[in-house]
Amino acid sequence: MLLSFFITKTMFYANIYPMSKIQDNKMEEIISLCKRRGFIFQGSEIYGGLSGFFDYGPLGVELKKNIENIWWEMFVTKRDDIFGLDATQIMHPKTFEASGHAKNFADPMVEDIKTKKKYRADQLLEDLGEDVSSMSPQDMDSFIKEKGIKSPDGNELGRVTKFNMMFSTIVGASGDEDSRTYFRPETAQGIFTNYKNVLDSLHPKIPFGIAQIGKSFRNEVAPRDFIFRIREFTQMEIEFFIKKEDWKDHFENFRKSTWDFIEAVGINKEIVSEFDVPAEDRAHYSEKTIDFEFEYPFGKKELFGLAYRTDLSYFDQQTGERFIPHVIEPSLGLERTVLAVLTSAYHEDEMNGEKIVFLKLPKEIAPYQFAVSPLLKNKPELVALAREIYENLKSKGVRVIFDDNGNIGKRYRRQDEIGTPSCITVDFDSLEDQTVTLRDRDTGEQKRVKIEDL
Amino acid sequence: MLLSFFITKTMFYANIYPMSKIQDNKMEEIISLCKRRGFIFQGSEIYGGLSGFFDYGPLGVELKKNIENIWWEMFVTKRDDIFGLDATQIMHPKTFEASGHAKNFADPMVEDIKTKKKYRADQLLEDLGEDVSSMSPQDMDSFIKEKGIKSPDGNELGRVTKFNMMFSTIVGASGDEDSRTYFRPETAQGIFTNYKNVLDSLHPKIPFGIAQIGKSFRNEVAPRDFIFRIREFTQMEIEFFIKKEDWKDHFENFRKSTWDFIEAVGINKEIVSEFDVPAEDRAHYSEKTIDFEFEYPFGKKELFGLAYRTDLSYFDQQTGERFIPHVIEPSLGLERTVLAVLTSAYHEDEMNGEKIVFLKLPKEIAPYQFAVSPLLKNKPELVALAREIYENLKSKGVRVIFDDNGNIGKRYRRQDEIGTPSCITVDFDSLEDQTVTLRDRDTGEQKRVKIEDL
Repeated sequence: MLLSFFITKTMFYANIYPMSKIQDNKMEEIISLCKRRGFIFQGSEIYGGLSGFFDYGPLGVELKKNIENIWWEMFVTKRDDIFGLDATQIMHPKTFEASGHAKNFADPMVEDIKTKKKYRADQLLEDLGEDVSSMSPQDMDSFIKEKGIKSPDGNELGRVTKFNMMFSTIVGASGDEDSRTYFRPETAQGIFTNYKNVLDSLHPKIPFGIAQIGKSFRNEVAPRDFIFRIREFTQMEIEFFIKKEDWKDHFENFRKSTWDFIEAVGINKEIVSEFDVPAEDRAHYSEKTIDFEFEYPFGKKELFGLAYRTDLSYFDQQTGERFIPHVIEPSLGLERTVLAVLTSAYHEDEMNGEKIVFLKLPKEIAPYQFAVSPLLKNKPELVALAREIYENLKSKGVRVIFDDNGNIGKRYRRQDEIGTPSCITVDFDSLEDQTVTLRDRDTGEQKRVKIEDL
Repeated sequence: MLLSFFITKTMFYANIYPMSKIQDNKMEEIISLCKRRGFIFQGSEIYGGLSGFFDYGPLGVELKKNIENIWWEMFVTKRDDIFGLDATQIMHPKTFEASGHAKNFADPMVEDIKTKKKYRADQLLEDLGEDVSSMSPQDMDSFIKEKGIKSPDGNELGRVTKFNMMFSTIVGASGDEDSRTYFRPETAQGIFTNYKNVLDSLHPKIPFGIAQIGKSFRNEVAPRDFIFRIREFTQMEIEFFIKKEDWKDHFENFRKSTWDFIEAVGINKEIVSEFDVPAEDRAHYSEKTIDFEFEYPFGKKELFGLAYRTDLSYFDQQTGERFIPHVIEPSLGLERTVLAVLTSAYHEDEMNGEKIVFLKLPKEIAPYQFAVSPLLKNKPELVALAREIYENLKSKGVRVIFDDNGNIGKRYRRQDEIGTPSCITVDFDSLEDQTVTLRDRDTGEQKRVKIEDL
């Protein structure tokens, strides 16, 4: 029964879930679990789906919020020197001229001249096993021509062109091109444009940082790998303003904090590694960049970035003043984090010949911290006490679910699969001695606990 | 000095902060406070600003997050029957055909034929004291012609046309019009398109609801009144699915919950009133709508909406199945809430002939719950103990600020102005008896409290 479910899903999503080469079927299992249990759905699915857009379901939105809260608490609430911000996604077009995105934020694109399908030239070549890291679009074009490389459908490819990845729109009622602007491709822009506002209102002294969690938008030519490369995504970014001579210390501090965050959200540290990006691959403004890479089921890919951006090249147009601080930029993609968390948490086991699934999420980020069940559904006194415990936890703001479907074994399986760390079961002894069974997801250990101690 | 500050700001923002007629200068004072103290900044301000876009500064983002959290806890975490969701902002174009927005989400627009400036015809007529509530664009057009109404610059006006308020963009690399779609104008769309996903994954029984907090976008012809009518805004919306015969009970429950929320975030209930929207002014799908109206400094305007939308008219295109539940929709604008909260909290008083300002925010939503100060800045032992108390609170995730600027009176003024409910002062007695002065923002009352009891 499980198998047929997966087959159906695989067929159904053939077009919507394009993937890089897959080493095993773990990715497929995670995607299926996400949909089946309400973590993540294809965006606009009832209309056939919109490629590169994914919605968080009821369990996903809690997981996501918990991760955001850990980041915010770690980098804003508990720190002295980092201030929060939330800037709009649509910004003045001059923002993107100043940042260089209007001109340079482009991917190499190539078209199958028969089907008119568009491909990212770099991905096409990477999938063929080529190393494209130092190739320009011109290089890729020459390479494709020289080697006679064809499209995945076997047709000839056109010229490699540059495609600007920002989503544009027209603001205001005039409808003319003068009013065209863009949705930010990075949250960083909203931080840089507010640097002076934060300085004028809170008067922080250097070193200090500004942190933001918000949506960014990139019109990817070829979105792929579930929520890894998508067109609408959430970033958690800090711009930390420093004196030039101190950059190495601050860089090292953020390197350490990034590892702390990786640990706090339960990403498997064993399969995270630092990659010191060589000069030729760094953004032009960066003097040092470390990519934190994670072993996703589809290969080792960038999880987080940490860059020393050197000096801030924004101007105050009113005063003509130039901002001179240097900047360290820790930049995290929330969806990549969610995917690394899910990949780290996903475990399979076997019981009586049947596959069982565990999502070993830390209790701080699991959608539900507790599940409460009566041992038997048809014993009103057990149900009443279980409801009382549930309502009491819920009224305190604890994330808790009431589950009385099927037998107790099935309930444990169901809670294991969505990552609930502890299950509370009310049985006949509970009515006598006011204790319940507390069962641990990861060890399977069960112990009796007083209701008042929960 | 304060006065000259306000005059400068007023002149500077003449174009960016268009306002409805203002009864007093309270709105101007709030806008000035928001910028001066880091609550809210004009979007893209360093590039001259972008009309209808505002950024939350370090204090504003905390205030906003606290309000969001209260709403989420009240309607999702503490309830059994409402599930969270977070859908993308860009959706499939069929979403907006099905919802009617592609065709009908339009404002009446009229152009000054000389200056080419665009106006909302209804607002133009309202500002002249006309009642436009039942006028169609055609009616407005006839009215303007008959009465010979001119633009605010005294020029002739063109025809009243309909202007679609959705921001559109092209998704994918093809660049052709077939790939054009829209940013959602309401969060509701993301909920309706996921109705079936939630049903299939969590199997809730009717009645149940889906709740979402997220950005919506409307290309307003004439954004105005600070953060009241803006182009990029945050909605907190629930679609609650019910049986038709139960609608009155559920509607009444949400009416009550809305008042509970109004109280929880500290909006002045005395100046909120319910307006039972008459049939001719309701959306076509609604059988009953209540607007919760608030007395903003620029007049009585809609704060929240509560609508009985009757039956859900979305289809599952795969199965051809029609969704039949009826729907109650409580819909809240976060920025309108923030503005009502600030308006309710803003108080002025006088001390020694100088104006002093209080932001009487509930402690649950104030950006900082505590400020910690040493009585004297130049006494290391006082500073050390104050820092220790501050660090200790901060490490527990309490929102706390350290303030040692100026004398203690000035610090209290500064904290009153940003709404910090309690100030903790460390003095020489503290070193002896481990007590501090706890000063209350609203009463001015000061009492000695043991450090361990903070």
